[in-house]
Amino acid sequence: MRIQIVNGPNLNLLGIREPEIYGKKGFEQYLHQLRDMFPNVRIDYFQSNVEGELINMIHEVGFDRDGIVLNAGAYTHYSLALMDAIKSVNTPVVEVHISNVHQREEFRRHSVISPACKGVICGFGLDSYRLAIEALLNLK
Amino acid sequence: MRIQIVNGPNLNLLGIREPEIYGKKGFEQYLHQLRDMFPNVRIDYFQSNVEGELINMIHEVGFDRDGIVLNAGAYTHYSLALMDAIKSVNTPVVEVHISNVHQREEFRRHSVISPACKGVICGFGLDSYRLAIEALLNLK
Amino acid sequence: MRIQIVNGPNLNLLGIREPEIYGKKGFEQYLHQLRDMFPNVRIDYFQSNVEGELINMIHEVGFDRDGIVLNAGAYTHYSLALMDAIKSVNTPVVEVHISNVHQREEFRRHSVISPACKGVICGFGLDSYRLAIEALLNLK
Amino acid sequence: MRIQIVNGPNLNLLGIREPEIYGKKGFEQYLHQLRDMFPNVRIDYFQSNVEGELINMIHEVGFDRDGIVLNAGAYTHYSLALMDAIKSVNTPVVEVHISNVHQREEFRRHSVISPACKGVICGFGLDSYRLAIEALLNLK
Amino acid sequence: MRIQIVNGPNLNLLGIREPEIYGKKGFEQYLHQLRDMFPNVRIDYFQSNVEGELINMIHEVGFDRDGIVLNAGAYTHYSLALMDAIKSVNTPVVEVHISNVHQREEFRRHSVISPACKGVICGFGLDSYRLAIEALLNLK
Amino acid sequence: MRIQIVNGPNLNLLGIREPEIYGKKGFEQYLHQLRDMFPNVRIDYFQSNVEGELINMIHEVGFDRDGIVLNAGAYTHYSLALMDAIKSVNTPVVEVHISNVHQREEFRRHSVISPACKGVICGFGLDSYRLAIEALLNLK
Amino acid sequence: MRIQIVNGPNLNLLGIREPEIYGKKGFEQYLHQLRDMFPNVRIDYFQSNVEGELINMIHEVGFDRDGIVLNAGAYTHYSLALMDAIKSVNTPVVEVHISNVHQREEFRRHSVISPACKGVICGFGLDSYRLAIEALLNLK
Amino acid sequence: MRIQIVNGPNLNLLGIREPEIYGKKGFEQYLHQLRDMFPNVRIDYFQSNVEGELINMIHEVGFDRDGIVLNAGAYTHYSLALMDAIKSVNTPVVEVHISNVHQREEFRRHSVISPACKGVICGFGLDSYRLAIEALLNLK
Amino acid sequence: MRIQIVNGPNLNLLGIREPEIYGKKGFEQYLHQLRDMFPNVRIDYFQSNVEGELINMIHEVGFDRDGIVLNAGAYTHYSLALMDAIKSVNTPVVEVHISNVHQREEFRRHSVISPACKGVICGFGLDSYRLAIEALLNLK
Amino acid sequence: MRIQIVNGPNLNLLGIREPEIYGKKGFEQYLHQLRDMFPNVRIDYFQSNVEGELINMIHEVGFDRDGIVLNAGAYTHYSLALMDAIKSVNTPVVEVHISNVHQREEFRRHSVISPACKGVICGFGLDSYRLAIEALLNLK
Amino acid sequence: MRIQIVNGPNLNLLGIREPEIYGKKGFEQYLHQLRDMFPNVRIDYFQSNVEGELINMIHEVGFDRDGIVLNAGAYTHYSLALMDAIKSVNTPVVEVHISNVHQREEFRRHSVISPACKGVICGFGLDSYRLAIEALLNLK
Amino acid sequence: MRIQIVNGPNLNLLGIREPEIYGKKGFEQYLHQLRDMFPNVRIDYFQSNVEGELINMIHEVGFDRDGIVLNAGAYTHYSLALMDAIKSVNTPVVEVHISNVHQREEFRRHSVISPACKGVICGFGLDSYRLAIEALLNLK
Repeated sequence: MRIQIVNGPNLNLLGIREPEIYGKKGFEQYLHQLRDMFPNVRIDYFQSNVEGELINMIHEVGFDRDGIVLNAGAYTHYSLALMDAIKSVNTPVVEVHISNVHQREEFRRHSVISPACKGVICGFGLDSYRLAIEALLNLK
Repeated sequence: MRIQIVNGPNLNLLGIREPEIYGKKGFEQYLHQLRDMFPNVRIDYFQSNVEGELINMIHEVGFDRDGIVLNAGAYTHYSLALMDAIKSVNTPVVEVHISNVHQREEFRRHSVISPACKGVICGFGLDSYRLAIEALLNLK
Repeated sequence: MRIQIVNGPNLNLLGIREPEIYGKKGFEQYLHQLRDMFPNVRIDYFQSNVEGELINMIHEVGFDRDGIVLNAGAYTHYSLALMDAIKSVNTPVVEVHISNVHQREEFRRHSVISPACKGVICGFGLDSYRLAIEALLNLK
Repeated sequence: MRIQIVNGPNLNLLGIREPEIYGKKGFEQYLHQLRDMFPNVRIDYFQSNVEGELINMIHEVGFDRDGIVLNAGAYTHYSLALMDAIKSVNTPVVEVHISNVHQREEFRRHSVISPACKGVICGFGLDSYRLAIEALLNLK
Repeated sequence: MRIQIVNGPNLNLLGIREPEIYGKKGFEQYLHQLRDMFPNVRIDYFQSNVEGELINMIHEVGFDRDGIVLNAGAYTHYSLALMDAIKSVNTPVVEVHISNVHQREEFRRHSVISPACKGVICGFGLDSYRLAIEALLNLK
Repeated sequence: MRIQIVNGPNLNLLGIREPEIYGKKGFEQYLHQLRDMFPNVRIDYFQSNVEGELINMIHEVGFDRDGIVLNAGAYTHYSLALMDAIKSVNTPVVEVHISNVHQREEFRRHSVISPACKGVICGFGLDSYRLAIEALLNLK
Repeated sequence: MRIQIVNGPNLNLLGIREPEIYGKKGFEQYLHQLRDMFPNVRIDYFQSNVEGELINMIHEVGFDRDGIVLNAGAYTHYSLALMDAIKSVNTPVVEVHISNVHQREEFRRHSVISPACKGVICGFGLDSYRLAIEALLNLK
Repeated sequence: MRIQIVNGPNLNLLGIREPEIYGKKGFEQYLHQLRDMFPNVRIDYFQSNVEGELINMIHEVGFDRDGIVLNAGAYTHYSLALMDAIKSVNTPVVEVHISNVHQREEFRRHSVISPACKGVICGFGLDSYRLAIEALLNLK
Repeated sequence: MRIQIVNGPNLNLLGIREPEIYGKKGFEQYLHQLRDMFPNVRIDYFQSNVEGELINMIHEVGFDRDGIVLNAGAYTHYSLALMDAIKSVNTPVVEVHISNVHQREEFRRHSVISPACKGVICGFGLDSYRLAIEALLNLK
Repeated sequence: MRIQIVNGPNLNLLGIREPEIYGKKGFEQYLHQLRDMFPNVRIDYFQSNVEGELINMIHEVGFDRDGIVLNAGAYTHYSLALMDAIKSVNTPVVEVHISNVHQREEFRRHSVISPACKGVICGFGLDSYRLAIEALLNLK
Repeated sequence: MRIQIVNGPNLNLLGIREPEIYGKKGFEQYLHQLRDMFPNVRIDYFQSNVEGELINMIHEVGFDRDGIVLNAGAYTHYSLALMDAIKSVNTPVVEVHISNVHQREEFRRHSVISPACKGVICGFGLDSYRLAIEALLNLK
Repeated sequence: MRIQIVNGPNLNLLGIREPEIYGKKGFEQYLHQLRDMFPNVRIDYFQSNVEGELINMIHEVGFDRDGIVLNAGAYTHYSLALMDAIKSVNTPVVEVHISNVHQREEFRRHSVISPACKGVICGFGLDSYRLAIEALLNLK
């Protein structure tokens, strides 16, 4: 079992950026915990602020992984290219958001990638990632 | 550990109504499985087609339970009173949907209760409930 | 032969409320007459001011009765949940109104449940119920 | 007891015109059945394609009959003169439609004569006429 | 002299829910004060989160009390059925709101029940209830 | 001197229909008075509920009378054919209305025949007819 | 018997302005004829181009005259203040127009003062004023 | 071979009404010529100013004649009932107009009956009728 | 007697292009039949896909021929130059269409050349041309 | 192998008209070069400023050539007739433009014929034609 | 002679993604053929899903290569930065598309980069690239 | 004192690209001058065409520099991700543009990053950078 986590722009600042929204824990630190939680799952991690590198990664893992957990950050709201990439691959993609985007600015309530994803999980802090993995495991 | 599942209107017909969208399994049957999955969690279940009873239940369990999993059915789209109720209590509420509402009719993409909830999980079939419980367990 | 009458909000005040519109006879009193008129039909009666209890009743009787006579009162104009409930069951539903809703406020001329019903009867006072039963009997 | 049925434009073609909507039975044939159903009621029948003759008939029978059953056909949607005629007389007028107009084209959901009528019955095929007579009998 | 206070959804949480808006005092506590202020008035109190039960109460007390003080909570904004209930009874109903609803979210500025009420008092905190009783006393 | 009065739909019911609007006097009775007022004028009278028969009469008298006084009733608002008929003849036509149509329903404020008429007189009860004859006499 | 004629804007130019529409006769000249026609009526005349002065005049004569003949000129189409003035007084007001306003520009077909007037007379040239006085005499 | 000519409102004035548009010849006179032109065709003629009588005639001849030549006059522009009648019968209907309606008022350029007819012929004066018969003969 | 047929763009493909709309017969073949039908008429034929040549031809024959039969094809809908050409000449022009353009796309219901033509014939297949010649012969 | 080049309006001025856009070489001169480049292809050339002659040529070569290279000039932007012609034939048509139309006026960015063509080549000066032939050769 | 091919987002999936639109051949495979076709041209190939890397590459090769063939994929429709990059360099850029974008979704008909390119070639499958190189060779 | 200059897409081409807009001086050359002007400030410089790398740099320097001078080039107009990055850091960011973007194309007048920046300076050529540094110095 192998799952790819893909994090988009500004998510490398996790733990630093607006901690009242995103929490104080860095993602790397969380990743250790996550791997401990799923000893039978190989969890790969990728972060980029670059739209195209996110597409690259979707392509790279989109045909043989068991699932992709994608937090597209602000690209969620306008990257049609990312949506096309999700549509182009076979692996199910779960859209996650750390914060409850429905409690923030209006524009964050609209996602262009949701219709291309299997499902959406938002609002549980970093635990949204664990839940996405749980969801993917259950799809098997 | 004690969690309340609250299901709204027409969800008592699960397994009967439009099975191509909501699946063929009744919720009671699923509830057994769910309790087996979480032996250390007391999972209470409540379903009502009555908007006010949903509010009552939110109030009743909203101060001492460890979490509420809420599928508000069609009330999702217009019950401001339910939204107020969620805002009024301390217990975190997780909004769940069985189907990926973003792949269906446009009006199902708008929820008036999302901003009052802790988070949202949609698109994973009945497994959305398990994930919601997982999410709540982790909030502790 | 078994038919269910379902009355919505404020219809319990029949005979008391705005008698110039709804008449002076209470529904219970009328029900006796109605049962006398149809000795071979078992006529069950249910009234509630609660939207969800109306849905409950539609569910309860919607699979084995021979017909439902529904006066949804003011819920006629906005309860999408009730419309969903009517759509979810097999039993034919006849929409009735005591008054001629077309002679009153503009908003009472629009019904969200009409498209989900078999037919509509309005304006004959309490006799609208008898006519609805007549209509249902003839569908057999 | 004496009741007048008034049928408007093109209803003389019943059984011939668009049978998938209006049924295959001619109205004359149905009229026999109807009279057999109500042996104590004298049922007069009038059909005209002429708006003014429909008004004449409403006037003629509008003060001494026990009721008028009116299917105004396409005039339903624009004959303000017919509406005025209905308002001018004492005899109660019941508006009937063979099909459930709420399940068809949008423009068929609006009637200019409904506000002037005693009540409306639609959607029960030719049985709508029987129900209208039932309704009128009960008004006495 | 006998007056009924009717509180709608979420008002049972007064003193608990959003105290910066609604104050810290529970309604029961305030009720004692209120009764002291009006020694010659019998003040009954009812609260429900269920739209239909509010209607029920309006019905129950709407013919023999000297006045009803109604805070319909969020139902204020969309319950046509509650409006109908108010119209159905004789007792004058005063609509009250604790906060100045015109200073809050836009949707809280529209009330569907105001046209059916005797008058509206909003924005004086719990004192809105006292003023409503004052108003009702003066109607005598 | 010879003048034709032409009354349209429902005006045969004058004195019977809605007397609070149209008065209690039948037109025949008024006609006697009118003839007495104008001893030197031959006043002919015609009434029909049929749009086409009104057109017929306009044709018949439209070439040799000294004037036509036309109350087209509800056809005033949509009969382009009547307008064409008025345009087709030589005799001046005065449009009259018994009531002040501008004080009633909105749709009664628009006349399609006014542009084809010599002038318009409305609101003076039956006296509108006398004024119309006065106007026609003065045109000579 | 005392009647006030009130002429609005531009009517002082009568006989000069667009004689093909309004005729060549000045109003003063016509006034002499008018007074000769009604020897038993005192006819006062007032003209102003000032909206407010017309209102003043309506107020001044609106409680003790036997009638007001008002040609409001272009104010006819938008002076809500004039309409309010007419509504405020007891004396019946007859709206007159020299030309058939329905044969001219579209905007001249709508009068905001008609609903406040007793009746309307238009299209008979200056004779419209005589007819208006006739109408007022008959109201007595 | 048998063909029915149906003329609508105001066409009885042919030769009298606006001869610069419709010509000076009466239709009866033309009918003689027409019958002489087609000795092997039985040409029936009907004219009415009454909308419904036109519908009657369409019904009467609409199942066994070889063709209908219809000049619906002003009803062309708004009689949906006439359109329905044309749709209801089997006999091909040719819409004719004496004048070239495209050279006149804008509203005369729109016909609600054209889509229900076989074809349209307009602008050839009375000869439009002969051409319509020619067209019908050729359809056989 | 000499008549000119003028066919516009793509009509040379008649019998080849979209035969379900325009029929399978080529125009040349039909022309032989047409000439046989009118032995005393010299029928000239011109087809061009060239807007300007159509104009040229209208000019060339527009002063001495006895009539022009014009099927302007797609130019019907936008060639104001063609309309001007038709207006510029003396010879009457008859606009023809093979299909009933009122039963097809909306844009085909509007012709810019109709107001400039003597008359219009549409919907009779190729026979529309014969009818046009008949019409022209009769204009003499 | 036989290919037809079709040039539209103003392209005969090539080398003279706006040489900064279209270059200084006349098309005839270029045609020699082009034929030399494709010794095995018979390249026919046609130019016309006349919309209809372009249609003619499309018709003439549209069933047996191996390809058409079409530079429709300004007709590109509005000739629906040309689009119809392209649709009517079998031969593949390549749309070419000498200049990059996207660098010029906004209206030149929209082509009504592109959807009917096989492909589009623009911006390479006269070489666009060679490329179009290359493209057509490769389709074989 | 040296030419750079630049492919944008998702074009690395050529042969895998939506083969019914883009064909089954991978680009690498096609590149071999392309190089064989142009033995005297050095053809460099670059693909990136990264908008900025596409800009980098345009910069890198934009001053000394003999041409750039650019298929910008979905960036075609919104990358103003890419457009700026093309404008900034000297090397001519040819925009290519595999499919005829004018026959697909409306949004694919608009390109923000076309105005900055030398020319556009679309609709010839992978052969569009060869044609682009042909075009570039000829620019020398 | 340490300040970071961040230049976005295409600004590496300064001095080469469109010198009539951006000037002939390369940014490196200007950087020397700039450092001479501020001997006490350490000025670091970074340029990238990749949206995500700009974000990276904002992150890298956004917590310990004294200020960031950002010319985001075309990303200014649509990069919400860049806006998020600016919001994520502590260092004040000054948005600069060399040209007066308000004097150029309409789309260059809208900046999505302005709301996240400390201030904006545009239109002073390269001197905009100096002014930005001046501005930042003054913030201390």
